[in-house]
Amino acid sequence: MSESIQFERIAIIGLGLIGGSIGGAVKAHGLARSVVGVATGDDAQVALQLGLIDETAASATQAVQGADLVIVATPVTIVPTIFREIAMALDTRVVLTDCASTKGSVIAAARETLGRSFDRYVPGHPIAGSELSGPTAARAQLFESKRWLFSPTTDAQHEHVGKLMAFASALGARPAILEADTHDKLFAEYSHAPHALVYALCLAVADGPYADQLADLAGAGFRDTSRIGASSAPLWTDILMDNSIATVESLTRVSQAIEHFTQVLASGDRQALEALVTRASQWRAQLESTDKHAKSGQRD
Amino acid sequence: MSESIQFERIAIIGLGLIGGSIGGAVKAHGLARSVVGVATGDDAQVALQLGLIDETAASATQAVQGADLVIVATPVTIVPTIFREIAMALDTRVVLTDCASTKGSVIAAARETLGRSFDRYVPGHPIAGSELSGPTAARAQLFESKRWLFSPTTDAQHEHVGKLMAFASALGARPAILEADTHDKLFAEYSHAPHALVYALCLAVADGPYADQLADLAGAGFRDTSRIGASSAPLWTDILMDNSIATVESLTRVSQAIEHFTQVLASGDRQALEALVTRASQWRAQLESTDKHAKSGQRD
Repeated sequence: MSESIQFERIAIIGLGLIGGSIGGAVKAHGLARSVVGVATGDDAQVALQLGLIDETAASATQAVQGADLVIVATPVTIVPTIFREIAMALDTRVVLTDCASTKGSVIAAARETLGRSFDRYVPGHPIAGSELSGPTAARAQLFESKRWLFSPTTDAQHEHVGKLMAFASALGARPAILEADTHDKLFAEYSHAPHALVYALCLAVADGPYADQLADLAGAGFRDTSRIGASSAPLWTDILMDNSIATVESLTRVSQAIEHFTQVLASGDRQALEALVTRASQWRAQLESTDKHAKSGQRD
Repeated sequence: MSESIQFERIAIIGLGLIGGSIGGAVKAHGLARSVVGVATGDDAQVALQLGLIDETAASATQAVQGADLVIVATPVTIVPTIFREIAMALDTRVVLTDCASTKGSVIAAARETLGRSFDRYVPGHPIAGSELSGPTAARAQLFESKRWLFSPTTDAQHEHVGKLMAFASALGARPAILEADTHDKLFAEYSHAPHALVYALCLAVADGPYADQLADLAGAGFRDTSRIGASSAPLWTDILMDNSIATVESLTRVSQAIEHFTQVLASGDRQALEALVTRASQWRAQLESTDKHAKSGQRD
């Protein structure tokens, strides 16, 4: 499906895996006359060299000048600072979105800081994370077949929501609407609590009596299970802090399930254990088949 | 490295992922004049059609007749029955091994059942599991660069241990010796407790309030983390039952780490949380680099 959406000037603030990949995808699909980027450290220079953006800006304020689409792709805790910084410099035609993995806190910050531009802001979340980070990990195909969620506030204009959904589609993603509070609870369950669980598993093994031989002896299973633990620590500290209430709620239910599983295992009741293992593995296998179905359906 | 080891007749009992892959690898490397296999259901017929074995046998007893290498590759709880069945039929020249993920119980069973052949038995464990199972998942390359552990009893003869280590090498694996009790504790930590953890995570999410949208919205992270949950339920019930004491011990330490992590997250102490996340992610990233190193070293 080829979208004809075009922007004059897209400003991307934050050029890590997500911001860099958006830049690369916009340029690959020819969706903007120019893409300007700004980031901390040398990320903007790297992104420029990699062809993910057309030009760099000296500041976020400068980057957004004249931009009809502004995408904030910084870590979640930086988003409020960026909003405060760019609020007065935003073009009157702008559509503004972000890419944070939690939505409640960025919406509250937007409401406080964006002033007259608040109704031009549509909170977004492309589901395209990775244990990799930085502009060198960026790929123009990153969003292909992935969900890109939008959580418009009641102030948001349909036209802007529609523009962003078409933009996400043009980048290969499957846009959808999800109310912000529900979004944060769902991602606590599907992503933030599992990250916390993996961190705890890694710490238990690292601090346990058998850490030394893990690298030599552990199979692919441990590596798969713990892979998300290698994600950026500052980024994930931010996400967990930002969505701590919902994450603690999910983690508590997981802890109860572990406690129950451990009790059944310790009791030696084979039948009860097999019932738990069978139900878990059937559920997980079902997820795999749904996944394949969704993906192949998407590619058709 | 090319091994010149040859067997007259290799009998493989159990033709799932591991047994089937051993057959395929033996034939690919020309390590035996003939490979006979026996299995439940139609696994033996499927293995024969896939070229993983040369012939099927009517029973385990028949399969081991005249075999100078016997490999028991059934689920761990079946191993004692097989040992009892084949004990009297084993050739006097035989070397016997198994592939179970836990070693304590199969060694105890071997001691009870194998009689005069006990000193020809060398417990083994190829670290090459997968969430896939059955002969159709078998691959001759499965053992390439993988560890293959042997836990010889004090009765085992060096010659037999050496023969099996050379055999594992010839299949592309990296053989090593690991004492049985240590083996079972290490694999409780690296594999069995993580499986239990993933089952509990799957059950918590499946039974939780947000199960419906998982297939649509969860990213690659949840799928990676829970992948091992799709493994064969009967096989994993057996493994967990068989190694329950060590697994409960490991799981208890993981539970404590989760409790601590949850407390820090709930307390809102960003610095303490970042310290935990950073330590966990550095440790996990280190595992990745060790892994790459080990693999590239192996392929040199």
